Amino acid sequence: MQNIDNALLELPAELVTRDQDILSSYLTDFRRQYTGATTALLRPRHTADVQTIIRVCAKHRVGIVPQGGNTSYCTAATPNADGRELLISLEKMNRLRDLDKENLSVTADAGMILADLQRAADEAGLLLPLALGSQQSCRLGGNLSTNAGGINVVRYGMTRDLVLGLEAVLPDGSIYSELNPLRKNNSGYDVKQLFIGAEGTLGIITGVSLKLMRKSCQTITAFLAVRDISSLSAILNAAQIQSGEAITSFEYISSASLNLLLTAKKHLRHPLPDESEHYVVLEAATVSPILNLEECMNALLAELLESGMIGDGTIAASQQQRAALWYLRESIPEAEVHHGGSVKHDIAVRTSRLSAFIESASRLVKKHRDDAILSIYGHVGDGNVHFNIVPPIGIDQNAFKDRVEREISPEIYQLAFEMGGTFSAEYGIGRVKLDLLRRYGAEGKTHIMERIKTAIDPRGILNPGKVIP
Amino acid sequence: MQNIDNALLELPAELVTRDQDILSSYLTDFRRQYTGATTALLRPRHTADVQTIIRVCAKHRVGIVPQGGNTSYCTAATPNADGRELLISLEKMNRLRDLDKENLSVTADAGMILADLQRAADEAGLLLPLALGSQQSCRLGGNLSTNAGGINVVRYGMTRDLVLGLEAVLPDGSIYSELNPLRKNNSGYDVKQLFIGAEGTLGIITGVSLKLMRKSCQTITAFLAVRDISSLSAILNAAQIQSGEAITSFEYISSASLNLLLTAKKHLRHPLPDESEHYVVLEAATVSPILNLEECMNALLAELLESGMIGDGTIAASQQQRAALWYLRESIPEAEVHHGGSVKHDIAVRTSRLSAFIESASRLVKKHRDDAILSIYGHVGDGNVHFNIVPPIGIDQNAFKDRVEREISPEIYQLAFEMGGTFSAEYGIGRVKLDLLRRYGAEGKTHIMERIKTAIDPRGILNPGKVIP
Repeated sequence: MQNIDNALLELPAELVTRDQDILSSYLTDFRRQYTGATTALLRPRHTADVQTIIRVCAKHRVGIVPQGGNTSYCTAATPNADGRELLISLEKMNRLRDLDKENLSVTADAGMILADLQRAADEAGLLLPLALGSQQSCRLGGNLSTNAGGINVVRYGMTRDLVLGLEAVLPDGSIYSELNPLRKNNSGYDVKQLFIGAEGTLGIITGVSLKLMRKSCQTITAFLAVRDISSLSAILNAAQIQSGEAITSFEYISSASLNLLLTAKKHLRHPLPDESEHYVVLEAATVSPILNLEECMNALLAELLESGMIGDGTIAASQQQRAALWYLRESIPEAEVHHGGSVKHDIAVRTSRLSAFIESASRLVKKHRDDAILSIYGHVGDGNVHFNIVPPIGIDQNAFKDRVEREISPEIYQLAFEMGGTFSAEYGIGRVKLDLLRRYGAEGKTHIMERIKTAIDPRGILNPGKVIP
Repeated sequence: MQNIDNALLELPAELVTRDQDILSSYLTDFRRQYTGATTALLRPRHTADVQTIIRVCAKHRVGIVPQGGNTSYCTAATPNADGRELLISLEKMNRLRDLDKENLSVTADAGMILADLQRAADEAGLLLPLALGSQQSCRLGGNLSTNAGGINVVRYGMTRDLVLGLEAVLPDGSIYSELNPLRKNNSGYDVKQLFIGAEGTLGIITGVSLKLMRKSCQTITAFLAVRDISSLSAILNAAQIQSGEAITSFEYISSASLNLLLTAKKHLRHPLPDESEHYVVLEAATVSPILNLEECMNALLAELLESGMIGDGTIAASQQQRAALWYLRESIPEAEVHHGGSVKHDIAVRTSRLSAFIESASRLVKKHRDDAILSIYGHVGDGNVHFNIVPPIGIDQNAFKDRVEREISPEIYQLAFEMGGTFSAEYGIGRVKLDLLRRYGAEGKTHIMERIKTAIDPRGILNPGKVIP
């Protein structure tokens, strides 16, 4: 601990918190998979503080773990259990720096909570399209560091697609700052891309510039009972054509996921009179006062009913009904927790192979355990499905989950790989998917990652043990 | 030349061309700014050939310059004049590898000509949205290596935004291959981003996967006479709102640019009865059969006329009229060449500062030379303007251009910098903008670029002397 103690002696006292009661709330990850330890939490107030912290830690070769809202699904923001790393939280860096309505851009500190920036955009009459389940607590630096996805990717892309500029402190304490919110800039390598999705292993993001969008004047949400899972792409295609590509969300819910939810929350009602195997929550939005979205959605439902692709469907008639439909989709993770947890697989394949993947993976699970509950849902418009295995009622849940992770998960990842898919569509690598990256990373990729890591962080002080196998 | 001769002895003869008559057509850049020299041209037929070439060149420490369609605006694809670098053209690698209609994706060799891939997409009933002036000769590897922009960026983004996957051969001859066309993939650093916009200095791109889009069933094109340049953003905003964000192009043309063109091509007619200082070519397209684009465009013109933002406007009534409007926009570079050339400045600033930039830069030029012709046009929907200075008639044009480059260009770049803009919006760096990158590159950026270059290409054999200051 000599190194850490020497580093802490050099750091300004006002940045350092050693109170273990305070610390403890930062040390367990969001999914409660891992609890780390640390001597101190560092809370910089501005970019210069981050530089000071990194310079001191670099000098003493102390590892630093950056944390935003602590909502990682793969323990990317949790320090090691040996207590030899310092934790840095950017929660005090939460200023809005600039909002340019005409340029449709916003610049903010990386510690700002996503929902706070959404509100700031909304108050300016604009839309920040990044929308996630954890938006009330996740922070921008974490959103960029994990290249967060969410429910609007089908229209607005991943976080990477929204980033116009970035400021980061490097492992030697120097600054990279390219925050100008330009739509086009080919002045050398696009260095900001390096830090997006790097989970804090190459630099600590301190500021971000993001695109804003015009706010819609019409939004319409529908809930569809889909006859055959192989028609999901055709349904999305029909919806895009009818609406002029106004679809903002296209989310799949399996009957098992919906049933878990209706069991967990008895006051909820099924939105359709009859049950189905497959459901879709679909949303369209437009800034146009001329395009008649309701007409589009009615035409879509008529087309889908007539072709037999859906058995039934309902369009939200009020803001309250719209919220109720979204509550169904967004409460599934909570319903899984209520049930006792699940073994999650965050898979993406080509949209043209999605139903084949779901069918093969389901057969594979049932072959092992025909009592397993398959909670399958997700952002199928992007080819991304959360394929989660939930223990049946009345058995030792932890034993079941351990066995699934040991025996079934490897086969699911192998299947995704063989179908040209990925083992991590939106959650990232963190500490928990290093083995998968080693096994299924693209040809030559980890070799390049290692070279970049060594070039930028030769002492390996930033988020040690994460992302790089 | 010992090294080159030894390398050529080891290379398979069928890949090597030494005929100087053939070579000469590869050695002068598109804008005829620079003529290089080389002993041999290498033409690989597939990725394994590229590996062979790079391994041999790495062994003998021979520099390699990759060339696609040789349409760089900054001599990025031209070898040095000392003849000590080998030229590699991917023109024989032009296979379509995979087109997935349901997944809306296409995978092809990097040597494929952009227009050929556009045609393949079109024949499949889909749209490849990348569209450039040079599309009949530029090749995909060059499009990715320069992160090409073009006329559809306002709707579909730059090349980077369209790339789903990439295959490249590294300076040690190894392969990086991540071609799976997935919409979401957070499995480690997004390594493909490194090669996009790197102008062939980090690896030779051999294969690409790109997004396709649904083909529009309605397209509408308008030509507007804009009263005040400061209302460009407001006009684009009104157009996006009326059309439900269906705008695919929003291009500015100054009266000077249009006049150059009407002088160069006597058969052309002005599309409006009265002259104006400022024009916009605007296009909207939709896949929707329900959205009435003509109604949207009529509503837009009425709104803009009533508010006084435009003095006049016309909507193309036929495919022929539409082509004629686009011919005006796309022939400006040719008209500049016909006139005797221009000194080009490829500037982007925030859209909210674009008119202020154009006005200040114009004043600045006129202060030096009030006889200079200012051919100003470009992709103003993205904040990108081509601010080109054309010699007046009847003077020594080369002397004028030399003087502009020496005395006026530095002030224009300084102005763009002070306004938070960039000196290279879409052309890149190549050999000709190294000084500008040194002076105006973002804080800390070139330092990171150098580290990455050294990490990936430690011997500096790939496109030496380009991009890295």
